[in-house]
Amino acid sequence: MSIGLAEIRLARVALGWLVEPGNRAVYQSVSRHGPVRVLDGLLSAGLDDRLRRAAGARLGAADPRALAEAALERAERLGARVVVPEGDEWPRQLEDLRHLGAGETDPLERDVAPPLCLWVRGPSRLDEALGRSVAVVGARAATPYGEHTARLIGYELAQRDWTVVSGGAFGVDAQAHRGALAAGGLTVVVLASGVDRPYPVSHANLFDRVAEDGLVVSEWPPDTDPFRHRFLIRNRVIAAATRGTVVVEASARSGALQTLRRARQLHRPAMVVPGPVTSAMSVGCHESLRKEDVRLVTGVGHILEEVGRVGADLAPPPRGPEHARDGLDPPRRRLVEALLTRKPLPLDELAARAGVPLRDAMRLVPGLVSGGFAAERGSGYVLAPPPDRLLAGAGPPADGPANPAARS
Amino acid sequence: MSIGLAEIRLARVALGWLVEPGNRAVYQSVSRHGPVRVLDGLLSAGLDDRLRRAAGARLGAADPRALAEAALERAERLGARVVVPEGDEWPRQLEDLRHLGAGETDPLERDVAPPLCLWVRGPSRLDEALGRSVAVVGARAATPYGEHTARLIGYELAQRDWTVVSGGAFGVDAQAHRGALAAGGLTVVVLASGVDRPYPVSHANLFDRVAEDGLVVSEWPPDTDPFRHRFLIRNRVIAAATRGTVVVEASARSGALQTLRRARQLHRPAMVVPGPVTSAMSVGCHESLRKEDVRLVTGVGHILEEVGRVGADLAPPPRGPEHARDGLDPPRRRLVEALLTRKPLPLDELAARAGVPLRDAMRLVPGLVSGGFAAERGSGYVLAPPPDRLLAGAGPPADGPANPAARS
Repeated sequence: MSIGLAEIRLARVALGWLVEPGNRAVYQSVSRHGPVRVLDGLLSAGLDDRLRRAAGARLGAADPRALAEAALERAERLGARVVVPEGDEWPRQLEDLRHLGAGETDPLERDVAPPLCLWVRGPSRLDEALGRSVAVVGARAATPYGEHTARLIGYELAQRDWTVVSGGAFGVDAQAHRGALAAGGLTVVVLASGVDRPYPVSHANLFDRVAEDGLVVSEWPPDTDPFRHRFLIRNRVIAAATRGTVVVEASARSGALQTLRRARQLHRPAMVVPGPVTSAMSVGCHESLRKEDVRLVTGVGHILEEVGRVGADLAPPPRGPEHARDGLDPPRRRLVEALLTRKPLPLDELAARAGVPLRDAMRLVPGLVSGGFAAERGSGYVLAPPPDRLLAGAGPPADGPANPAARS
Repeated sequence: MSIGLAEIRLARVALGWLVEPGNRAVYQSVSRHGPVRVLDGLLSAGLDDRLRRAAGARLGAADPRALAEAALERAERLGARVVVPEGDEWPRQLEDLRHLGAGETDPLERDVAPPLCLWVRGPSRLDEALGRSVAVVGARAATPYGEHTARLIGYELAQRDWTVVSGGAFGVDAQAHRGALAAGGLTVVVLASGVDRPYPVSHANLFDRVAEDGLVVSEWPPDTDPFRHRFLIRNRVIAAATRGTVVVEASARSGALQTLRRARQLHRPAMVVPGPVTSAMSVGCHESLRKEDVRLVTGVGHILEEVGRVGADLAPPPRGPEHARDGLDPPRRRLVEALLTRKPLPLDELAARAGVPLRDAMRLVPGLVSGGFAAERGSGYVLAPPPDRLLAGAGPPADGPANPAARS
């Protein structure tokens, strides 16, 4: 009965060839029946009409499994890999997209489901690179002001250990990536073409530099062209992968505003950098700022205020004894920081708060206990030393107060 | 029993010399007992201690009535006049300030009562000039961007028949006045010194140009110096006199932000023009925009959207037969436009909606009826021709529909 990860991967890649990413009907079918059965059904005409219509144009044109195998081989030669929801590396936050598109009839608004799979080039783990990430997007025809601001924000986010995610385009996108690289930080390019088809072509070198530490990501298999509508489909991934989206310069109809709208739909912070009212490249920014739920930000301080509200890992900066945790890698550090609560956390809650997959938490937490960072307490875990002492500076231990009156 | 306007004016001027403008205790006493009795009481030690303390420093130093007479004579020689609440020309909206300052202990926050009187230089009626007005204020050390934007906003407001009110300072204030003058519109300078004491001195020519059509206004008698704290006292008048306040460039601690805050306290639209995040002259603007109740505006279109919500005189632009009303002067036009409702308006409600003093409405409305602009209906007034016909284009008369079904 059990289906291997390789077979799942192949089925998802094949489905991704049959339908454009984001297709809601296919996503729902895959959620219910699994990718292998959905692919089998499509190929043997056993599934419902809606799905067959979604895949219609490509059904029968070629053998999707053979094409998927060829794509996977090509990716391997390129040093790229496929990441699927069934694997460890999948960024869970992308699944938030499943709440979008219900009841919509316009395909552009309806077909915004989570990706079936992601093609990834680069050494970082995708889920870890995106765990603490911010999208910085904006105008291709950016002004020097916009380019300067995007670069500075990229630089300062990376300095603070935040991954900068963008679309690799001219102007704001590229400067955000470059700023992050200049700070020696991680940055992720989400392309609307295959990971071996840099777009714009002149950014091939930039993407190669990104892929040295960070990641180049796409929903489309290698060798896919960046058709116009794919940028709009792609934008939802940038919004969903990150803790929040910042727009730096946008003309009235900029695609960056669509990414911002997706962020709002996903209840992620939607942030905009203002500019001179005399600049056409800020018209879209200012119109957005006149809406509800869009926050004006002038720099990284404001951005971190917004994204810090979302997760636990922007807790007050650690002081004193817990500096040892600075030496931990990101998932371990997130687990330890998630323990900054007064009551013990069961393992599954701890994993959820830390944004770490449960199976990773099961693997990592015992080491944190033996390393003196965490301690078991009942059926859960607490910070070691106890949080009372850490937070109050020198309070009594939580389970044996020397002077109860001092607590009031 | 009845006290003449000249006596009232003298008493208010004398009280204004005894206490700084805005004093809440004096304002409340004057509201209750009238200015003449309050002055008598102060001079004869018959009033309560709180008032005597407010006037303490100056009581006994000179004869306030003699000083007031001298100031009035001096003003007359300058071509200036005193406007008091008991007279026709008083801008009623200033009385909204009486709601502010309750329960405050800091004098700067407590003593923000309406002015006792205003010294005015210029040919326009003060109430009419301020009836359709917007405050445009901002940094003295404005950048070329801020100066350009302030001037453009001043110009475009004046083009649309809005009075531009500001403080006459270097930078944004001066450019807003200049923009209004360039459009041939009305502008009002509210000074923190006597109307004969231009501050800054180099703006003496600017103020003279303003006073050719518009007004130079002050709460302080002629020859008063612009002490530092007087600018803050003055700001409440700019906010209260206008339909809304626009800030164009403001550093983090700009006085313009105080005017903005007063506008918010008065529930008037508080508007801010953004700028580059790299500019220190926009830091105060952006911080304000991150607060609630502050609207980002990029130009006059946005500004009129905001101030248009406040009064009736931004009703849909008149069409067809009512173009004749364009030939009316502002109070008459406001009265006619206030009639754009379906039910007859009693005279007092009509006056309130039009923002016209009741005694003026009593004087003006009969002429509007005989001129064919308005008609009596029961105990109120309606637009003539009837609003149904005007608004629907060619509907049946309100009181005798030819085809009732056509109304649904």
